Amino acid sequence: MFEKKENKPKGKSLNLTSLSELGEFGLIDRLTKTVNLYHPETRKGIGDDAAVIDAGGQMILLSTDLLIEGVHFDLTYTPLKHLGYKAAVVNISDIAAMNGIPKQITVSIGVSSRFSAQALDELYAGINLACKKYKVDLVGGDTSSSVKGLIISISIIGMGKQEEIIYRNGAKPGDLLCVTGDLGSAYMGLLILEGEKKVFQVNPDMQPELTGFDYQIGRQLKPEARTDIRNLLQGIGIKPTSMIDISDGLASEILHICKQSGVGCKLFEEKIPIEEQTRELAIEYKIIPSVTALSGGEDYELLFTIQQSDYEKIKDVEGITIIGHITQPSDGTFMITPDGKSVQITAQGWDGMKNKTETL
Amino acid sequence: MFEKKENKPKGKSLNLTSLSELGEFGLIDRLTKTVNLYHPETRKGIGDDAAVIDAGGQMILLSTDLLIEGVHFDLTYTPLKHLGYKAAVVNISDIAAMNGIPKQITVSIGVSSRFSAQALDELYAGINLACKKYKVDLVGGDTSSSVKGLIISISIIGMGKQEEIIYRNGAKPGDLLCVTGDLGSAYMGLLILEGEKKVFQVNPDMQPELTGFDYQIGRQLKPEARTDIRNLLQGIGIKPTSMIDISDGLASEILHICKQSGVGCKLFEEKIPIEEQTRELAIEYKIIPSVTALSGGEDYELLFTIQQSDYEKIKDVEGITIIGHITQPSDGTFMITPDGKSVQITAQGWDGMKNKTETL
Repeated sequence: MFEKKENKPKGKSLNLTSLSELGEFGLIDRLTKTVNLYHPETRKGIGDDAAVIDAGGQMILLSTDLLIEGVHFDLTYTPLKHLGYKAAVVNISDIAAMNGIPKQITVSIGVSSRFSAQALDELYAGINLACKKYKVDLVGGDTSSSVKGLIISISIIGMGKQEEIIYRNGAKPGDLLCVTGDLGSAYMGLLILEGEKKVFQVNPDMQPELTGFDYQIGRQLKPEARTDIRNLLQGIGIKPTSMIDISDGLASEILHICKQSGVGCKLFEEKIPIEEQTRELAIEYKIIPSVTALSGGEDYELLFTIQQSDYEKIKDVEGITIIGHITQPSDGTFMITPDGKSVQITAQGWDGMKNKTETL
Repeated sequence: MFEKKENKPKGKSLNLTSLSELGEFGLIDRLTKTVNLYHPETRKGIGDDAAVIDAGGQMILLSTDLLIEGVHFDLTYTPLKHLGYKAAVVNISDIAAMNGIPKQITVSIGVSSRFSAQALDELYAGINLACKKYKVDLVGGDTSSSVKGLIISISIIGMGKQEEIIYRNGAKPGDLLCVTGDLGSAYMGLLILEGEKKVFQVNPDMQPELTGFDYQIGRQLKPEARTDIRNLLQGIGIKPTSMIDISDGLASEILHICKQSGVGCKLFEEKIPIEEQTRELAIEYKIIPSVTALSGGEDYELLFTIQQSDYEKIKDVEGITIIGHITQPSDGTFMITPDGKSVQITAQGWDGMKNKTETL
């Protein structure tokens, strides 16, 4: 009865597969391949930014995120109020990525005894601030002690009309690939914070050098969700053919759209919108600037495809950039560098058992 | 910027409030007292088994649970398949407690590198088994590494017609207090498993003595949700005035109903349904049998109130026991012992930072 081998795997000796061998996407595929759906009102299950459920009148969107201290956030440089705000925003972003309206969230927390009630007040102040800004109702959750550190699990419900919902799988060859805002700054903000943490660890009397990097640090610690894009696109008469939010990095999200739509793509490196200081900082850090956008993640901008015939409507819209186009699946998924070279787009999700921020 | 005091509380010296001072319910009250609701379709927020959202046609029920290894479960005696099944069932039970129909779940997991893919296969086999039995669709989730141990966060959506939903706050003086099934066996199962674990830790060559306790161990490791009660009550023409599921123990759940309904109650100790072997085991363990029901929890039976005029309809229904009645709020919340003494009903939720199973 006790010490069953499935509970305490010993690794290779029992022919067991380690999670790092599979990687995040391999693990998800493995765990979900036997999933059955029993309800016709479940219009979309696993595989998009949110599940889609037909509730009769409205379509209900459901998404969830799990954030673990030491994996997804570092409290040495993340104020708890910012963390609460960001935890809510990343969920709200998932609803924006479906072109829905965020409505309700539940917040569950697991906390160790090192946290005071005042610390959790700060966390909830951030959550409530995001709820106020995005008009989202905090409707439930679960509180528990944890063995170690802080754990936050947020689930969100959004709504939208059936014809409004935008999935990842609707991109067609010839469609234009568009992105909102600029990319890579959240990642540069993370590098700055991690760098100053190392300086602090070596010499705790040193004051961190964070001034002048407000934009990058703000993008990392207090991102916003692009709930405004729904109205903007509706206003100019465009309905994207596919959409996803950029949480893991542009490369990863493009591949999601291409895989699920069964298409290829051509991305132009020089078109990727990167803020000027972020570009300079990347070079200073000896990183190719486009890599901050392609692999950095956490910008929470939206990536979407539109029909080519919508080009005139979108070409002069401020804050939206056309970065490439969709191709036949046989053309593959490539980025074209400024000197005309084709580079295969690759992406890693969460890499097995390593710290998420270490694998970027 | 670094080492902010709200992130690393030092305890009393900064006048901070420890979580153990507040307790679970105090913490929930504190964190949720400033919550605003922005959407009229949010019919019920925090404070019931599930939130209730008006989706136009149907009412959407939303609930969530966070389960942490070392706090909520012990893998030395919990097979992962059972754990997956139970994790789904406790959420399904929340929907049953609202008189709704469970429909969709999301499952997020955080796993440390000690788990193999095969171990997670077992966990998901249990989840899928519960989904099949209760006709629930697994529609999404999140996978992540964890710093330590296994973390499972499940959210569930249920549906029901507006007039079908049953809240905690509808009990009226004179109503009868009813419970499904029997109580306390899940707690006795836990004590047996914990006892055998201690024996094993002292002498790993000892075989655990679990035979003969199938009912108690089954109630602890593989509980079921009472989704059948909805149809049973509908069939005899009864709509409860309030309802809750018994996850924390009968005492705690009775107090939830009384507090939210603004009423008192009289519970008769001798009426509490306790399975015969569980009663004998409790005495053997030097525990008053009713305490296994009052404080044990995890039976996932339903506690509900009905109008007195429904007495004739319910009195002979097998598997439902009338255990008391609702009184005026000024009468307080009391249990009457077989020798006629009145004992104030008290309950603790999760007790600050201690292990949940230790505080029972």
